[in-house]
Amino acid sequence: MPVTLYTDAPDFEQRFVAMLSAKREDSADVGETVSAIIADLRARGDAALIDYTARFDRLELTPDTLRFSDAEIEAEIAKISAQERTALELAAERIRAYHSRQVPQDESFTDADGATLGWRWTAVSAAGLYVPGGQASYPSSVLMNAIPARVAGVERLVVCVPTPGGVVNPLVLLACKLANVDEIYRVGGAQAIAALAYGTSTIAPVDKITGPGNAYVAAAKRQVFGKVGIDMIAGPSEVLIIADGDQNADWLAMDLMAQAEHDADAQSILITPDPTMADSVAASVARLVPTLERAEIAGASWRDYGTIIVTRDLDEAAALSDRIAPEHLELCVADPEALARKTRHAGAIFLGAYTPEAVGDYVSGPNHVLPTARSARFSSGLSVMDFIKRTTLARLTPGALAAIGPAAVTLAQSEGLQAHGLSVAARLTQLNERSGA
Amino acid sequence: MPVTLYTDAPDFEQRFVAMLSAKREDSADVGETVSAIIADLRARGDAALIDYTARFDRLELTPDTLRFSDAEIEAEIAKISAQERTALELAAERIRAYHSRQVPQDESFTDADGATLGWRWTAVSAAGLYVPGGQASYPSSVLMNAIPARVAGVERLVVCVPTPGGVVNPLVLLACKLANVDEIYRVGGAQAIAALAYGTSTIAPVDKITGPGNAYVAAAKRQVFGKVGIDMIAGPSEVLIIADGDQNADWLAMDLMAQAEHDADAQSILITPDPTMADSVAASVARLVPTLERAEIAGASWRDYGTIIVTRDLDEAAALSDRIAPEHLELCVADPEALARKTRHAGAIFLGAYTPEAVGDYVSGPNHVLPTARSARFSSGLSVMDFIKRTTLARLTPGALAAIGPAAVTLAQSEGLQAHGLSVAARLTQLNERSGA
Repeated sequence: MPVTLYTDAPDFEQRFVAMLSAKREDSADVGETVSAIIADLRARGDAALIDYTARFDRLELTPDTLRFSDAEIEAEIAKISAQERTALELAAERIRAYHSRQVPQDESFTDADGATLGWRWTAVSAAGLYVPGGQASYPSSVLMNAIPARVAGVERLVVCVPTPGGVVNPLVLLACKLANVDEIYRVGGAQAIAALAYGTSTIAPVDKITGPGNAYVAAAKRQVFGKVGIDMIAGPSEVLIIADGDQNADWLAMDLMAQAEHDADAQSILITPDPTMADSVAASVARLVPTLERAEIAGASWRDYGTIIVTRDLDEAAALSDRIAPEHLELCVADPEALARKTRHAGAIFLGAYTPEAVGDYVSGPNHVLPTARSARFSSGLSVMDFIKRTTLARLTPGALAAIGPAAVTLAQSEGLQAHGLSVAARLTQLNERSGA
Repeated sequence: MPVTLYTDAPDFEQRFVAMLSAKREDSADVGETVSAIIADLRARGDAALIDYTARFDRLELTPDTLRFSDAEIEAEIAKISAQERTALELAAERIRAYHSRQVPQDESFTDADGATLGWRWTAVSAAGLYVPGGQASYPSSVLMNAIPARVAGVERLVVCVPTPGGVVNPLVLLACKLANVDEIYRVGGAQAIAALAYGTSTIAPVDKITGPGNAYVAAAKRQVFGKVGIDMIAGPSEVLIIADGDQNADWLAMDLMAQAEHDADAQSILITPDPTMADSVAASVARLVPTLERAEIAGASWRDYGTIIVTRDLDEAAALSDRIAPEHLELCVADPEALARKTRHAGAIFLGAYTPEAVGDYVSGPNHVLPTARSARFSSGLSVMDFIKRTTLARLTPGALAAIGPAAVTLAQSEGLQAHGLSVAARLTQLNERSGA
């Protein structure tokens, strides 16, 4: 059980900093192995992809069976219960509605000098989504990655999902169908990332790769970055709950354990100004953990990284939260909006006792792919913005160039870039001759 | 001189693909050296920073002289001519006006189920801008990095600029002043990046680092990524000009050489459906290069990477441009807006004969930090967005949870995440009891 920290204790700052800087993840150094896989994939294409799939996933494929056929997809989807199908459809619909509001506007304006300036947004042409196999093969993650891409206007949307021993999660295929994914390949690992980035005879390359994965997938994404775009490299997940004294301690315990059950490296933090609430939640967690299916994982996470902090007041809680910059921030207090305004750095905020973080993982609408490991200080969750890019536009009239061009010539000369200056000056000379004529 | 390619030649596709995949940059592998510098900086702080500055910049500093004093800054700025000062002020003002339009709106809406959803944007708290020393110490780049940060609302803005032998570019300091930079340190290289990311006794750490630099700076940015945010890792620069037959060939030649003079690895490309224009521009470049101050650099770039392509028509030119996804795209044609609509992937588009790319480097307003090496397929130039991040917000009423919560429970069970389901189900149970009571 974690020891409760009190902000009025003399050693609090020291212990808080130690908690902040604790490294929760041992990332195995698989860079060289991954480099070799990528090089092999680039050299041998489909043949390499098929070899690695036989070795790592115990599955014999041919170029013709790399891709799921429509009939296979329909056959798998037919196994899904009506209740699950309806739930996934609701999730897809709500995620689509939320993300549709994220599409930004183009801009164009003409200034006093006669320069017409602006920008426009266009979609990435092709995107690849990685979906892990096995236990962590989450249909919700397919929706959270694929729907923003579709809303953005991505033309070609590809999924790679490994199927160890040939086993596939039908709900993953249904999620792909609900998001209108164009192509689904039963390959995974670094070899799948390499195939998406460089292409093979069967899989055409994409421009952007998103989605979670193990250490090999993460290393491969880092290595192909630049050739293609990637989303963030996700670290272990965390939740921070700020609660006042008037909450249901069992609900908070469940919310903390919903985070802890993800991964032994996950972190669950409770901050409250009420020492009684702190004790009640700690006791409730202790009762809850042994009853959980994933008791071992959740227990390890809570034992190693679980944190309870008792503060002087809610303002102090908000200030500590900003130093942590949590991925998920639950505000279980009487006036959550007011407290939200006192925080600044968080991936997602869940306001009030009836907005448990888990509802956000599935159906509330906002994305569940969020910045981990304090990176909410400088980055955002996945969104439509990850699948579009901006082109700036400028058109100068001769008058506008006459007005602002001389300053460009001066600055180009200052920077020692003569041809820059010449390219502007030559046009100015012509304009001066014209106006003199 | 580059050979002109004709799209109707039988080997065109092969030659175009070879041009596309040519690697223009030999990036030295300095990763290990940089790792050692970062580790030393983390261990020894200011002392390491001072040692490396003595060794690499031949400059003896103390903790008290790491930072430029206000008096030093004013003394340097006093050396600047009125013409240069006015030009830089115009640039700053126009860049600020353009970027002020980029600040996105927050969003909040309540859906039919009673869920209030949305997001808000907040600024990164502290940003560090790297400015190279020596020849590539460009005041325009200071403005292009610092002004978007200020417009975004960054509270603390720090610049690191090496001053080899103690020599500083006064215009860099003026640019910092015009952008209201808070602190300027005379340090550079990997050690400056490490200081910004991890902090020293003198330099407090920042959350985001942007700005160009040499191979050591680029490697250091890659290594501290995750601890802090970074902007793109810039590669060699390129321009693509699409011109019809009715253009001034000398202007186009100057525009091509304005790109080529940056760097022997820069690339300048002309695409035109008019073979006579192709020949005229080639001849004009041949006359221009020997007259340039940077003839050697521009000549090498043009010889090794310069490309002229004659197409069947402008539509074909636009299609080739999209395959290249150039950093800068100049459309010197009768109807540049129409042609712009036929292209999709470019960092910045310059429309018409009176909008030379060089004017965009300094004073037109849009940012000159743009995606290189075909990355405009999936990324955007620097903007206010690089200094803000989005927090998603959700608040469910009990009624909203009752409406959508059951689907979350179903999906949590499908994914084997029991505590996720429990945290929602416990609240639903209470709501059912209440409504039953």
